[in-house]
Amino acid sequence: MSEAVREPRQDRSRATRARLLAAAVDCLADVGWSGSTVSVVAERAGVSRGAAQHHFPTREDLFTAAIEYVTEERLAHMRDGLPNLPPGRDRIEYVVHAIGEMYSSKLFRAALQLWVAASSDDQLRAQVVPLEAQLGREAHRLTVAALGVDETRPGVRELVQATLDMARGLGLANLLTDDGKRRRRVLDQWASTLAAIVNDAPG
Amino acid sequence: MSEAVREPRQDRSRATRARLLAAAVDCLADVGWSGSTVSVVAERAGVSRGAAQHHFPTREDLFTAAIEYVTEERLAHMRDGLPNLPPGRDRIEYVVHAIGEMYSSKLFRAALQLWVAASSDDQLRAQVVPLEAQLGREAHRLTVAALGVDETRPGVRELVQATLDMARGLGLANLLTDDGKRRRRVLDQWASTLAAIVNDAPG
Repeated sequence: MSEAVREPRQDRSRATRARLLAAAVDCLADVGWSGSTVSVVAERAGVSRGAAQHHFPTREDLFTAAIEYVTEERLAHMRDGLPNLPPGRDRIEYVVHAIGEMYSSKLFRAALQLWVAASSDDQLRAQVVPLEAQLGREAHRLTVAALGVDETRPGVRELVQATLDMARGLGLANLLTDDGKRRRRVLDQWASTLAAIVNDAPG
Repeated sequence: MSEAVREPRQDRSRATRARLLAAAVDCLADVGWSGSTVSVVAERAGVSRGAAQHHFPTREDLFTAAIEYVTEERLAHMRDGLPNLPPGRDRIEYVVHAIGEMYSSKLFRAALQLWVAASSDDQLRAQVVPLEAQLGREAHRLTVAALGVDETRPGVRELVQATLDMARGLGLANLLTDDGKRRRRVLDQWASTLAAIVNDAPG
């Protein structure tokens, strides 16, 4: 087979795989873990059941890959959302709001479905826990860099963690109703508070 | 029937109902929504399936009552957890930690299962949303009183909300692994930060 023929076929295969993974995330966010079967995902992706099973022979194969995909997408989403502002109040305000919105996205809802399913499914838990630990470390590192704060100052590390925990809680509060208005007020206040603390002269 | 006979029977009936609701919460926390059927709950409660169906003819009846029960239990848990300390740093530290632990409890895990199930089940959502709104208002009111802070000062209302959102996020972070050590460090720092802000002379 010539390069010219093989390449498009590999591209198509890769595109099909990506479509299935994106559809798996959509399904998780919309209908939850128990409703997200390979058939449902394949139909949503516009891929035949046979083609879906060629890529992912079992439901576990599909969702193992989807978990990694969600993790990578959430990190990419976070990296892409980082602004290029000088350190200071404006940057902190921008980043705190960006983090709040990230945790209220479809990717968060999909991840939430996986966490909750994993809480009563040991096999799924064994897949989710290490990926979440990796995501947590990377999200923390990215957030410190994005905020432009000095983590060697006492308390700063914990306040960055508190910011991410708060964003996770706000994401959960947004699950059943649109909590955007309240969320923005809470994030506004927290951004001011955080900026006042980290912009103080070092103690 | 004499009073003497009717009373114990009513007590027994009430006790059976309470056992079923407590078992429903345990089931939700342990095996999730999809695994929590009337049979499973009845078995866990040590109640016959017939007796369970006498109290709760359908799964919806059982979990509607269990949702209210979870809500009332979470509020009672919060009320009982409030200390009787003079306003100030120690009281804030105590309350911030107490709230953090409340949101990492079995009741939170059970409520989380309901929220996530409700996110893809319109009937369940219609039951959960008003109860959650009521719980949210009451939790906020109780937290303001417990912290002993003045909500008329600018920003205080939002920082109390941020405290509850952070506690919710910490609860979620505790779902798959024991996050207690990290949680206590974050809450320590949060309590110091909050105490420094609200104990400042009014601006």
